[in-house]
Amino acid sequence: MTEPTAPTSTTAVASSLFHVYDTTLRDGAQQEGINLSVADKLTIAPMLDELGVGFIEGGWPGAVPKDTEFFKRAAKELDLRHAELAAFGATRKVGVRASDDPQVRALLDAEAPVVTLVAKFDVRHVERALRTTPDEGLAMIADTVAFLRREGRRVFVDAEHFFDGYRYDADFARRATVTAFEAGAEVVALCDTNGGMLPDWVREVVQEVREVAGPDAPLGMHAHNDSGCAVANTLAAVEAGCTHVQGTVNGYGERTGNADLLSVVANLELKLGRRVLARSDDAPGGMAELTRIAHAISEITNISPFARQPYVGASAFAHKAGIHASAIKVDPDLYQHTDPQLVGNDMRMLVSDMAGRASIELKGRQLGIDLAAHPDVLSRVTHRVKDAEANGYTYEAADASFELLLVEELDGSRPAYFRVESWRTIVERNGGRGTPATAEATVKLHAGGERIVSTGEGNGPVNALDHALRAALSRVYPELEAFELIDFKVRILDQMQGTDAVTRVLIESTDGQTSWSTVGVGPNLIEASWEALTDSAIWGLRHHGVPPR
Amino acid sequence: MTEPTAPTSTTAVASSLFHVYDTTLRDGAQQEGINLSVADKLTIAPMLDELGVGFIEGGWPGAVPKDTEFFKRAAKELDLRHAELAAFGATRKVGVRASDDPQVRALLDAEAPVVTLVAKFDVRHVERALRTTPDEGLAMIADTVAFLRREGRRVFVDAEHFFDGYRYDADFARRATVTAFEAGAEVVALCDTNGGMLPDWVREVVQEVREVAGPDAPLGMHAHNDSGCAVANTLAAVEAGCTHVQGTVNGYGERTGNADLLSVVANLELKLGRRVLARSDDAPGGMAELTRIAHAISEITNISPFARQPYVGASAFAHKAGIHASAIKVDPDLYQHTDPQLVGNDMRMLVSDMAGRASIELKGRQLGIDLAAHPDVLSRVTHRVKDAEANGYTYEAADASFELLLVEELDGSRPAYFRVESWRTIVERNGGRGTPATAEATVKLHAGGERIVSTGEGNGPVNALDHALRAALSRVYPELEAFELIDFKVRILDQMQGTDAVTRVLIESTDGQTSWSTVGVGPNLIEASWEALTDSAIWGLRHHGVPPR
Repeated sequence: MTEPTAPTSTTAVASSLFHVYDTTLRDGAQQEGINLSVADKLTIAPMLDELGVGFIEGGWPGAVPKDTEFFKRAAKELDLRHAELAAFGATRKVGVRASDDPQVRALLDAEAPVVTLVAKFDVRHVERALRTTPDEGLAMIADTVAFLRREGRRVFVDAEHFFDGYRYDADFARRATVTAFEAGAEVVALCDTNGGMLPDWVREVVQEVREVAGPDAPLGMHAHNDSGCAVANTLAAVEAGCTHVQGTVNGYGERTGNADLLSVVANLELKLGRRVLARSDDAPGGMAELTRIAHAISEITNISPFARQPYVGASAFAHKAGIHASAIKVDPDLYQHTDPQLVGNDMRMLVSDMAGRASIELKGRQLGIDLAAHPDVLSRVTHRVKDAEANGYTYEAADASFELLLVEELDGSRPAYFRVESWRTIVERNGGRGTPATAEATVKLHAGGERIVSTGEGNGPVNALDHALRAALSRVYPELEAFELIDFKVRILDQMQGTDAVTRVLIESTDGQTSWSTVGVGPNLIEASWEALTDSAIWGLRHHGVPPR
Repeated sequence: MTEPTAPTSTTAVASSLFHVYDTTLRDGAQQEGINLSVADKLTIAPMLDELGVGFIEGGWPGAVPKDTEFFKRAAKELDLRHAELAAFGATRKVGVRASDDPQVRALLDAEAPVVTLVAKFDVRHVERALRTTPDEGLAMIADTVAFLRREGRRVFVDAEHFFDGYRYDADFARRATVTAFEAGAEVVALCDTNGGMLPDWVREVVQEVREVAGPDAPLGMHAHNDSGCAVANTLAAVEAGCTHVQGTVNGYGERTGNADLLSVVANLELKLGRRVLARSDDAPGGMAELTRIAHAISEITNISPFARQPYVGASAFAHKAGIHASAIKVDPDLYQHTDPQLVGNDMRMLVSDMAGRASIELKGRQLGIDLAAHPDVLSRVTHRVKDAEANGYTYEAADASFELLLVEELDGSRPAYFRVESWRTIVERNGGRGTPATAEATVKLHAGGERIVSTGEGNGPVNALDHALRAALSRVYPELEAFELIDFKVRILDQMQGTDAVTRVLIESTDGQTSWSTVGVGPNLIEASWEALTDSAIWGLRHHGVPPR
């Protein structure tokens, strides 16, 4: 049996024997809605390397043409500092020699230093899916591992359906484990392929397997989140002696996803005191980059980040202020489970329902405005926010509108980029079901000493108004052409009985570099949208240092 | 110490001593982006009751005006079968008598059978946030619990920051626990308020607390998901002897959210064989409704469902077909951790989707239409629903639209109450900030042999269209005058790359007796609203037995 070797460049501590194995590019890509191109994978791999994982599973060369190409290009184009690439593939087919199996040969051709072989460890899958005997199932493992070892590869074995298989026929699962190690596997990763395990069950099985494989046999854990316990199952396996953890960034993966490698690693490093990420002095990477890398990868997968994701989510360290704000200011550690800066995240105070002076002051500080020095402004802002929230506004998700409110109270007025004379929008449909409707808008405003009348069309009234407003303002403020509306949310707020419902609109805009959110409220959805649209233009112009013309 | 009593209507098994305590309406509502109205809470509570939870924490009466109103209306309007309402609040203030503390009195005024008191169990919070002595901290617990018990309430105590507190000063946390029980608390729920615990730590602390409080002392667990282990932490607490679990539907909550009560309950029922949800023969509710209820509640919170959510997520039982497709069909149990139908979800093959039939048949039955007798109609409806859902429709919260779709497939067409020639809506504002906008709409349609042109005004474009449609149709169908639009929800759906966003509108209408919901989808919000408005009128007329004229 070969001992695992340290990933290159790792600080030489005990954890160098510990593997952090990322399968975002292979198992993560199985997620509904994820479709990674070769270029996407070549962009993500260096990010994983920067994070400090030990291994990057790049795909299944030979089975997936894109993955064959990935390994070819990776060999030429990637310059990884810490991580080794792993090629994933299956053991040889039934009844052929490993050296004659073209899919096994394709694993060699990928020229990755590590090959991770998936093999059936549940005897039912051997019999029903492979339609062969348990002995041939074991021979397939032994032959393929031995062949790849002879060819100079490090070989990891993914023990597919291990836990379900073990609970059905422990003897076969044990024999398969011993077979893999005897043939030269460096790691046997126990897979909860169907994701239904619970931590106690994982611990128990890992302990039993160690009795057979030996206390030093390098076992790994590959968890899926179907019971909601993937992270805890992985930690339970580590506590029971596993020295290799598999997972994906942001928990991507089929069904409920794989174990979120970021949470696993953060728990191991910050809570259990194990240094598991590779580090080098000139590229610290690691924990402090966790949030940035999580979000950067979600840009490439085009999966919206999950705000409640542990450690790295936008809400992960967000507090609804009010009650605790003053206490949080004094003693932040009493209100958070870890320091958000350790994972590159930030504490945020949400200006909400029960907003008080303390939370508004804190929020001002986050925007670079010291309200403590202006107690009168702080009072007026607090008062206005309370009023506004009673009327349906929320500034939790509308930092830009909140900043304009602050600026207005500090400066006495908001920046006067334009004056609105009137606007109108018309939506109509001439025909029955199936006929498309049309939308147009006209905006009349004054800016740069001119009276401007502008018209826009759109697929809806707000879109048409946005186009008309943008067309009108761009004549005087060409900077505005770079701005784009990227998200639009509508919420109808029930008011107390007897008054009408109120509509709240949240708009997110971007200039390609940064993004900002504004809010509008009114009895009329269009009116609320107009308010958010104009706030967005004003904030964007101000942020770009454009003076009112 | 009082023993917990069985929730009413529960099947009399051991689990009647086990509490499933939902705090979606209180702690869940702390989530960034969630803002529940009283009406929203009154809609969600019966869904939680149908699910079979034992307790529904409704809010903080006395501190949050909306919550005071919720309890007032709940007492009159809700008819819960299983669940008891719990009012959440704090122990008395420093240095006053419990009976003199207006916030404590407000908890009594809420008239909920259970009061859940949050109390500081971390001595650092007693000293730094309450700025008082440990002894006064204990007295605040003892006094408030005893007062509420004397007033006839069942009292649960939420032991805030319990785990962090215990690790800092176990003695104080233990004394506070004993104090709460001695004063008459029925349960002490140990809170991982900052959410940073790991399962092993939870187990250890719970075991130690039981040594002090006694092996039969009813302890509970309230977990947050900051380490990604909320579900596992809750299960660890149960394995260590806790008999009361708190959580929120869909894991809503501040920061990373609370323990997802749905995953907790599914793991307890399906994996650990504990019957923890209340059941009654005539309203089975429970596990089989898990998915439907999760999604219905997400419509009300207006938080997009998380596709990878365990058990209930849209992707939770979705398999990328191809490799395993045929094997899965033969032996589905080898490829899924539990039967999706047990939680009201479906296995989906992402290429050839086999979803829906069963649930559509069930839904038909709920509407009094036996689709099993019309397999061809069932196929067509399944196909149409799948198509519609791919385009952004949802029928979870739009039974009336679904029924019209069914009727259309059964009868060959939908009831022809009117034919639309055209409609138009104009919104305009003549003036700057502060000037009100106006909205008007014109509808041209054919009904009762006439061509009708009608105009309506409103506080927004949809309101104006609703008025114009109603005015036009009322000439021929006076029955329609009794109908009223009572709720209007809008969601912008992100589509796949390359296509534009789509708007989904849900409308709820009433005739004073019953209420019904319809859905509309389109690139244009007004167009989507029009579809939902016309569906609403058609369903209402049909439901009243009005023939097309």
